[in-house]
Amino acid sequence: MKVIIDCFGPDLGPGVMIEGASLYAAEKDFYPIFIGNEDQIKEELSKHSFKDYEIIHTDTYIENTEEPTRALRKKKDSSLVMALSLLKEGRADAVLSAGSTGGLLAGGLFLIGRKEGVERACLPVPIPKAKGHVCLLDAGANVDCSVDVIHSFAKMGSDYVRKVYSVNQPKVYLLNIGLEPGKGNKQTKESFDRLSQDPDLNFKGNIEARDVFNTDADVIVCDGFVGNIFLKSMEGFAEFIFSNFKSFLVKDSGAQEKNPLSEKMFQLKNMFDYKNVGAVPLLGIKGLVFKAHGSSNAKAIYSSLKQIDQAVDHKLADEF
Amino acid sequence: MKVIIDCFGPDLGPGVMIEGASLYAAEKDFYPIFIGNEDQIKEELSKHSFKDYEIIHTDTYIENTEEPTRALRKKKDSSLVMALSLLKEGRADAVLSAGSTGGLLAGGLFLIGRKEGVERACLPVPIPKAKGHVCLLDAGANVDCSVDVIHSFAKMGSDYVRKVYSVNQPKVYLLNIGLEPGKGNKQTKESFDRLSQDPDLNFKGNIEARDVFNTDADVIVCDGFVGNIFLKSMEGFAEFIFSNFKSFLVKDSGAQEKNPLSEKMFQLKNMFDYKNVGAVPLLGIKGLVFKAHGSSNAKAIYSSLKQIDQAVDHKLADEF
Repeated sequence: MKVIIDCFGPDLGPGVMIEGASLYAAEKDFYPIFIGNEDQIKEELSKHSFKDYEIIHTDTYIENTEEPTRALRKKKDSSLVMALSLLKEGRADAVLSAGSTGGLLAGGLFLIGRKEGVERACLPVPIPKAKGHVCLLDAGANVDCSVDVIHSFAKMGSDYVRKVYSVNQPKVYLLNIGLEPGKGNKQTKESFDRLSQDPDLNFKGNIEARDVFNTDADVIVCDGFVGNIFLKSMEGFAEFIFSNFKSFLVKDSGAQEKNPLSEKMFQLKNMFDYKNVGAVPLLGIKGLVFKAHGSSNAKAIYSSLKQIDQAVDHKLADEF
Repeated sequence: MKVIIDCFGPDLGPGVMIEGASLYAAEKDFYPIFIGNEDQIKEELSKHSFKDYEIIHTDTYIENTEEPTRALRKKKDSSLVMALSLLKEGRADAVLSAGSTGGLLAGGLFLIGRKEGVERACLPVPIPKAKGHVCLLDAGANVDCSVDVIHSFAKMGSDYVRKVYSVNQPKVYLLNIGLEPGKGNKQTKESFDRLSQDPDLNFKGNIEARDVFNTDADVIVCDGFVGNIFLKSMEGFAEFIFSNFKSFLVKDSGAQEKNPLSEKMFQLKNMFDYKNVGAVPLLGIKGLVFKAHGSSNAKAIYSSLKQIDQAVDHKLADEF
């Protein structure tokens, strides 16, 4: 497996991409193509032992604050544009990036190309629930979505869950502010009607944000603005709760082993830790592009490469 | 103080309204006017000792699932319409209801009347944060808001926080999916520009959902759809986390006294307990109408009456 690794993007710097790759290379043969500042990459590489690799130098990258389409046009030598162009040329099996989500989505569409019937690419974010995960899309990339776009999220989400998690008839819900049909804003009312009319979807109706953690849903669809508010409320609240206990546990060292309450707390904290999720694939484009969290550490990058390996093995690029 | 108490609405039945009123009456003289089923109210009243009260009988009420405007027109003899009409006639100082939020908002506007310059009434929901609360509006009543409406939320929220919490120049933020100006959807981009241009507002820019719990904001404004998603994500996540510990604590009885970790957990749970909030006033209308949570218990109703008393004392009906 050849993976193009964009070394710009992680909050913790390029080191986490290289350390993550080294952790994975210790387990399984793979060929990383690192894109980024050559000196920095070489310095990081010197800390690990790699058999095979390639470095492609650039000092340019797309920042999170840039308008994606403009940045893609202007920065042809950015790590992201180079990575996606190389994938398009068939130089590798997949791209892994922790960089700009907007840049990756727009780049995926413009440089790799969208699949037939797809209007916008999106990222299926796994939300932990009492048992397993539910796949939320879209979670921030696409705002002001038309009903067509929401409908395509439902179809892509269903396909993804069916193929990756082997769920036969994925249950699809619409994130809304009430359960009854007719609740919500203009967008959700119209989306409800559209989703209800698609016989190929196993559409189960509206779901409220408070019920997500105990739902039987496999897929939840919504406008990306709404999905992002949901996701970040959850992240913020989790951080708030766990930080309260962190300061407490630091004082009481070793408590996590002895105290069953702290054990439970650690278990929950783990459940909501993005590092255990790894990366998510861009849905709707003709290639395997994986987005890792900006705050990824080496362990998260290692998990991402494991997922990519499975996706390459199962030829998932043809599937979603 | 005379308060019209709508006995239809609480999930736990009319008993909580009457028990809450009795708790408050034990502390301070007040005259409740109970609206609801007379037999039920009398039965509940027999469990407590009230000096002065009045009962107005009706068996009709507006359900949460009903379209508010239609319900108000059709159900002239509903507890909500009767309560608001009596307030309009000057028969009491305030109305307290745990019933349909939509019905209360629409009824407030149509039956009590909106203040000058106000387009839609709204509820300022207090969100707990590391220190104190931040006031979120709107939290679900008004969806598909125009920029004018978002702007009026900012003005009403500022006035409310200034007068009730004595904050001099309340810091106002816009709930969005990025911090920089230009982030978000069409609605938030336009609202950002509008709020920035109002010299009377202390507008501090965008805030992301994950930062709400540690913010210096006094007021956060957003479309009601978005506010409701935020609020219910928080509620759902809190319930999920605390329920995990509840089952644990039941087995380990008495642990809350001995274990500092459980003490911390109880303290946090308390922080996110709506029962400690009481009720919130409807902003933008010419009268004091308070909305209590549907799941209120007697303690929540008692707190609500305490708040109403303060509002009446301070003549807040003229102020917001």
